Amino acid sequence: MAKAIPSRAEDYSEWYNELVKKADLAEHSAVRGCMVIKPYGYSIWEKMQAELDKKFKETGHTNAYFPLFVPKSYLSKEADHVEGFAKECAVVTHYRLKNAEDGSGVVVDPEAKLEEELIVRPTSETVIWSTYKGWIQSYRDLPLLINQWANVVRWEMRTRLFLRTAEFLWQEGHTAHATKKEAEFETKQMVEVYANFAEDFMAMPVYQGVKTESERFPGALDTFCIEALMQDGKALQAGTSHFLGQNFAKAFDVKFTNKEGKQDLVWGTSWGVSTRLMGALIMAHSDDEGLVLPPKLAPIQVVIVPIFKGNEQLVAIEDKLAPTIKNLRSKGVSVKFDNRDTHKPGWKFAEYELKGVPLRMAVGPRDLENNTVELARRDTKEKNTYDLAGIEDQILDLLEDIQQNIYKKANDFRSEKTTKVDSFEEFKQVLDAQGGFVLAHWDGTAESEEKIKEETKATIRCIPFNNELEEGKCVYSGQPSTQRVLFARAY
Amino acid sequence: MAKAIPSRAEDYSEWYNELVKKADLAEHSAVRGCMVIKPYGYSIWEKMQAELDKKFKETGHTNAYFPLFVPKSYLSKEADHVEGFAKECAVVTHYRLKNAEDGSGVVVDPEAKLEEELIVRPTSETVIWSTYKGWIQSYRDLPLLINQWANVVRWEMRTRLFLRTAEFLWQEGHTAHATKKEAEFETKQMVEVYANFAEDFMAMPVYQGVKTESERFPGALDTFCIEALMQDGKALQAGTSHFLGQNFAKAFDVKFTNKEGKQDLVWGTSWGVSTRLMGALIMAHSDDEGLVLPPKLAPIQVVIVPIFKGNEQLVAIEDKLAPTIKNLRSKGVSVKFDNRDTHKPGWKFAEYELKGVPLRMAVGPRDLENNTVELARRDTKEKNTYDLAGIEDQILDLLEDIQQNIYKKANDFRSEKTTKVDSFEEFKQVLDAQGGFVLAHWDGTAESEEKIKEETKATIRCIPFNNELEEGKCVYSGQPSTQRVLFARAY
Repeated sequence: MAKAIPSRAEDYSEWYNELVKKADLAEHSAVRGCMVIKPYGYSIWEKMQAELDKKFKETGHTNAYFPLFVPKSYLSKEADHVEGFAKECAVVTHYRLKNAEDGSGVVVDPEAKLEEELIVRPTSETVIWSTYKGWIQSYRDLPLLINQWANVVRWEMRTRLFLRTAEFLWQEGHTAHATKKEAEFETKQMVEVYANFAEDFMAMPVYQGVKTESERFPGALDTFCIEALMQDGKALQAGTSHFLGQNFAKAFDVKFTNKEGKQDLVWGTSWGVSTRLMGALIMAHSDDEGLVLPPKLAPIQVVIVPIFKGNEQLVAIEDKLAPTIKNLRSKGVSVKFDNRDTHKPGWKFAEYELKGVPLRMAVGPRDLENNTVELARRDTKEKNTYDLAGIEDQILDLLEDIQQNIYKKANDFRSEKTTKVDSFEEFKQVLDAQGGFVLAHWDGTAESEEKIKEETKATIRCIPFNNELEEGKCVYSGQPSTQRVLFARAY
Repeated sequence: MAKAIPSRAEDYSEWYNELVKKADLAEHSAVRGCMVIKPYGYSIWEKMQAELDKKFKETGHTNAYFPLFVPKSYLSKEADHVEGFAKECAVVTHYRLKNAEDGSGVVVDPEAKLEEELIVRPTSETVIWSTYKGWIQSYRDLPLLINQWANVVRWEMRTRLFLRTAEFLWQEGHTAHATKKEAEFETKQMVEVYANFAEDFMAMPVYQGVKTESERFPGALDTFCIEALMQDGKALQAGTSHFLGQNFAKAFDVKFTNKEGKQDLVWGTSWGVSTRLMGALIMAHSDDEGLVLPPKLAPIQVVIVPIFKGNEQLVAIEDKLAPTIKNLRSKGVSVKFDNRDTHKPGWKFAEYELKGVPLRMAVGPRDLENNTVELARRDTKEKNTYDLAGIEDQILDLLEDIQQNIYKKANDFRSEKTTKVDSFEEFKQVLDAQGGFVLAHWDGTAESEEKIKEETKATIRCIPFNNELEEGKCVYSGQPSTQRVLFARAY
């Protein structure tokens, strides 16, 4: 395996594309815009899913499954929603193929045209709220706290593996509540669940905040988000949680009898993260040698590479390490012992660096004599020799330290790349010179927001929660402002 | 909750339909043929998934994800496959909607027609083998042992919840091997994995065997299956494993360099089970009061119903049982304490019977005095009073006993309903009088098989593995036969 990925400095975009492919995470499929998630990439996604699913269940949610297809007319029921989602989507118009008369294969059977076209779900609010109508009669039926793991399709013209694909995998939570307050609490709770997951598991610091009106989810009254910083200085929206008010209850006529015996519209939320998180994870930490994975999400946490000549030496190493491997596994550490004789140790070292395995253990004949092993950290590339006795605790400590160190590095980077600016000149200059987040005053109008975007390609990522109030003037219009908001160029 | 489901004797089909809905397992969606899997139903499916996924990983498989869409031309590449799958499927022809000129909503944008139509996958052999072509060069790249959990769509005209729906959830394993022998081993191994899962977890005995040519998967050289018996005497195919030979390797030109340095075609298998298993689980064990779930797949294994008047009594019961609940959970038992004061105990008893909870614990003021609890088994409806001290072990024993008893009951039923017949008269008479499996001689021709199907609606479910050889005459044609095969009317 040649480590033929370009460096980040050379070409960040190509570095990302090649890394995704060379590390066996994903590749483009024959269908335009759709990806194949390869086993190694999928095993990282599975770890993410497991942790998120646990957090959803701990906060009282259960999973369910709703149909892939949305009747075309459903999309039109919520005015903003249809504007946002009806445009670029996959439309099913027929339900049968038949043999071509010229024998050239199969063709669409014109007789099998659907009366109403079906849309492959770009998101499921409409299908789910049309279903909730049948499930909700009384306040006793509320809250409904439901999540689904599913595939969705949005017909994107420019696609990039994980970051923007026509089909992607995600989870979408859809909850229904008796009161505004409960729905607001839920919206906030779930963005916090996402933030905790991003920081504790992905080792990726995020800003939490609220989107401006123009960046809101179509159909929501408020969109909360987490925003992360990539190594090229661009921001990436990593998760969103929407307060839907009573919009979808209105659109689908979902009412309930409240405790006072009166009919009321139901309050709603929706929230989601997707395989886009894979892109964020890769871009937040990896380096020119390959992936850097936080131990908590690494499919292989420790790889053992034996240095041997001939089968006898290999067996001696295997025998020596067998109890260690067993102990590590019993402590929940995932260990791979790579005993292949078809590849040299140096090749394997490069391979596991590329794949981001947090710890590599190398063991050769001299180690056998000395009862030692060599451990190399993927994050710092430090190597040290340790006594084999008690190595399990050493490894647990190192994995914890790597997890923290990766977070710290990303957090320091973000601190360096978060700049307060007070003029539009400075705004543009900082964005061009170093990118990152820019904290600047904004007059609160969609006009200034749009102009800034046109002139700099930077958007308001969010108005951070618990934002410090501060008198100032909008960097664009000079109009008065009460707080700085978070700008960045973004994925 | 009125237990308003018809009895099995009254109307088996309606009993099933109503049970699925009333027990909150699934319901029809607004999209014809698609279902909503409700939280309680989905939680059973999640338990099935977890166990199956574990078994797949223990046998060396990893998960991955392949695209939802299949280019139309792919389906045509394997001649039998296209005949089997191209006919009833959802066809995506356009990728954009636009506002209707008359303001009535959205319409398909005729400008946004796809050059080649996309089929929503009915199964993924074609997409996966076209991908494998890029992954396999040498024998070192083999075997590929990959599974995916996914949704698929087959445009069925007559649908029934879980048993036959246009969209359903499943797993599909797709493996590639260097030798015929390895691929054959894999095919057999996976049907055994399914059989063990069905028997050990679903408590459902199954026959394993091979399909006749006319019942084979389109594109396979051999299809192995597991066949279960439902309480109405009809068989249900619960899982299949296909030996694909080199058919898909030929169709997609997937070759590898073998150890001798020569080019060779790759050998393949595919295997799958789906949400149809939910239908099998329901129909195999449930009774006129509702679901009967085997403890190993029950989302709630023990429900505790307190019998109380006023909050003081409820708190006393809660305090008394808190250590028991904690102990049970630490032993991996899922316990629900239903402390609602909005429903009476009798209502709750009926509700949890309907939902198939294996054990119900009832605790009232007199139990508090006596340090006792009442346990009721869902399977036999036996009730007994036990000392609270040591109740945890009693519960573990009972759960194990219920699991075994449910299996035994289903197995006894199957024995009763498996009949050897030696004439076509007897064949028809047994099918009409009691249904079940019929073991009869068959001459091995597709003609007799087809005639028997036409005249009796019974099909050959499989030729059982390790079938006893026995001289005889085909019940239909009178031609010589060397073994009995397994017939039944089937779902």
